[in-house]
Amino acid sequence: MLDATLAGIGPLDEAAMAAAHDLHARLTKPAGSLGALEELSIRLAGLAGVCPPPLPEPAAVAIFAADHGVHAQGVTPWPQEVTAQMVTNFLTGGAVVNAFARQTGATVTVVDVGVATPLAPAPVPAQRQDPSHRSAPSAPRLVSAKIRSGTRDMTARPALTRDEARGAVEAGITAAHDLLDSGARILLTGDMGIGNTTAAAALITAFTGIDPAEATGRGTGIDDATYARKVAVVRSALARHVPDPADPLGVLAAVGGLEHAALAGFVLAGAARRVPVLLDGVSAVAAGLAAAAFAPEAVGAMVAGHRSAEPGATAGLDRLGLLPIIDLGLRLGEGTGALLAYPVVAGAVRVLHEVATFDAAGVSEK
Amino acid sequence: MLDATLAGIGPLDEAAMAAAHDLHARLTKPAGSLGALEELSIRLAGLAGVCPPPLPEPAAVAIFAADHGVHAQGVTPWPQEVTAQMVTNFLTGGAVVNAFARQTGATVTVVDVGVATPLAPAPVPAQRQDPSHRSAPSAPRLVSAKIRSGTRDMTARPALTRDEARGAVEAGITAAHDLLDSGARILLTGDMGIGNTTAAAALITAFTGIDPAEATGRGTGIDDATYARKVAVVRSALARHVPDPADPLGVLAAVGGLEHAALAGFVLAGAARRVPVLLDGVSAVAAGLAAAAFAPEAVGAMVAGHRSAEPGATAGLDRLGLLPIIDLGLRLGEGTGALLAYPVVAGAVRVLHEVATFDAAGVSEK
Repeated sequence: MLDATLAGIGPLDEAAMAAAHDLHARLTKPAGSLGALEELSIRLAGLAGVCPPPLPEPAAVAIFAADHGVHAQGVTPWPQEVTAQMVTNFLTGGAVVNAFARQTGATVTVVDVGVATPLAPAPVPAQRQDPSHRSAPSAPRLVSAKIRSGTRDMTARPALTRDEARGAVEAGITAAHDLLDSGARILLTGDMGIGNTTAAAALITAFTGIDPAEATGRGTGIDDATYARKVAVVRSALARHVPDPADPLGVLAAVGGLEHAALAGFVLAGAARRVPVLLDGVSAVAAGLAAAAFAPEAVGAMVAGHRSAEPGATAGLDRLGLLPIIDLGLRLGEGTGALLAYPVVAGAVRVLHEVATFDAAGVSEK
Repeated sequence: MLDATLAGIGPLDEAAMAAAHDLHARLTKPAGSLGALEELSIRLAGLAGVCPPPLPEPAAVAIFAADHGVHAQGVTPWPQEVTAQMVTNFLTGGAVVNAFARQTGATVTVVDVGVATPLAPAPVPAQRQDPSHRSAPSAPRLVSAKIRSGTRDMTARPALTRDEARGAVEAGITAAHDLLDSGARILLTGDMGIGNTTAAAALITAFTGIDPAEATGRGTGIDDATYARKVAVVRSALARHVPDPADPLGVLAAVGGLEHAALAGFVLAGAARRVPVLLDGVSAVAAGLAAAAFAPEAVGAMVAGHRSAEPGATAGLDRLGLLPIIDLGLRLGEGTGALLAYPVVAGAVRVLHEVATFDAAGVSEK
């Protein structure tokens, strides 16, 4: 399934991009006055192969949830059970990602690719809504695609076997196809996993070659001693495995999280289906680097939702050549940064659909 | 009316801000993980005087339109008639601001405070909509509040009399009250006026004391010769009038645009009604500086929608102490940057309404 997905990823359509560029010049606004939104809309025309590209509606967020063996190394003060507890919170609609999804009309799907704690019985969906909501998106949904109950501790052994890593990537591919087959026109990445910024930092270090200290951040907000331990853990894992950045499955197996592997598959499937994938924070950036290592042209489908406060996110975005839409110091994950950016992406495309030309509107040109 | 408005502007409510700060610490997310959104939501609680503050829905954009005598100095390659033509475009729903407003459900009101060219007969509202829109906001509306047909050329004489400047400020106050009385819970600024970045640069120079070359940008995209002329025009106008930054009405009269004066009133009325005012680009920032000169506490109601590509916008935002939400190189005006930022502002407030606490969700703390 991975190989078929990779074979389906191709270049942006130059003719559609040229058509979008030309259309922008005829719309009633000074040329270039929408800044980065113009470039984004042109690229999305190239991705779709048509100008204007489809409006990216409706939107679907997939939150890939998993646990991390490296949690045992004391890289975070949060207990591992919080991963499962937050999955329940997502399913009952109480998390920030739910609030943002309700506001934008996006659906929320939680994909369990490796939660270690048994999940509570399926909660009654009880979305909290206020009467002003324009639409009532369907209740959050749980998909069970558990590869194993958390990764192994990467400081002691590879986090995953190659087969497990491939299975997680394919779980992400399957999740993307399911959402697109259900009507989604844009995919938003989300993630939940106590300890997963440690794995993200290790992945970004492996793919970019920067120093672990440059890739590692304070995650949910850790003290100096924990931060020093976290950097040492990343450094030690990389020294043990020396993963080859040209072998993304090997990198994911050595130091990945199951959610990062699944996110990489999710991105690849979006690229193969020629649908934009809006990346959330540092976990998505790590996965984006993996996806680009699998298929460089997959970058054409990636839109950077925001610049996470994690330093590795900036290093990864620079490597991918992506400009983040939102840059407000968020470091929550869940898909929250992608959801905040989503209306901007939709607006960029909407301009090509709805704005009048100088000719049609009878507006003089300079 | 201006004096009564200024008398109604007060400080942020410390108790409501403390309550919002405390609530954030109990919600199911790491403390501080929403970055600048947390500070914004806390300030909006202080503005409203209650925690959580009201959801800022529905939103209303007011586009203040006017012409500029300084157009005669060759500061822009666009003919002056474009101001009136774009007003028609706004009213028929063909501009970028309309596309963004439809996406967010915001209403659009054009306030003619000084368009020089006679406006075309009221166009038939023919909003272009696609079936996916969640709501059908009412058609754009025109309000006639013309003070005069464009300003005088600021390089030759004051752009406005003090009475005209006051009249324009009060037109903005009236527009804000009308929108709030009609149910709007947040005000978004918009502007249209060929030549108005020249006036904005002059206002920003007057209020901040920076050099005209630092405040002046390329507006809709002008060549080097026009840019040099534009800087010289701003420098010459300020040298002629030497406006006193402590006398905002005098500054607006000397080098303002009618739309900048109206926008200042619009901001002041929002502050007096304790409703957030989402600033668009450089014209709104210039007006924000004027509003702050009238009433420093008005800054508490201002939210910076985006960082315009005009350099004066950054200088003005720095002076006001405002962090822009969007920073994507836009330089279109109309209210487009404010509309792109609007869902982020709504999301920041929504978190305080809808996100579960650790206790309620049964999520462990660190």
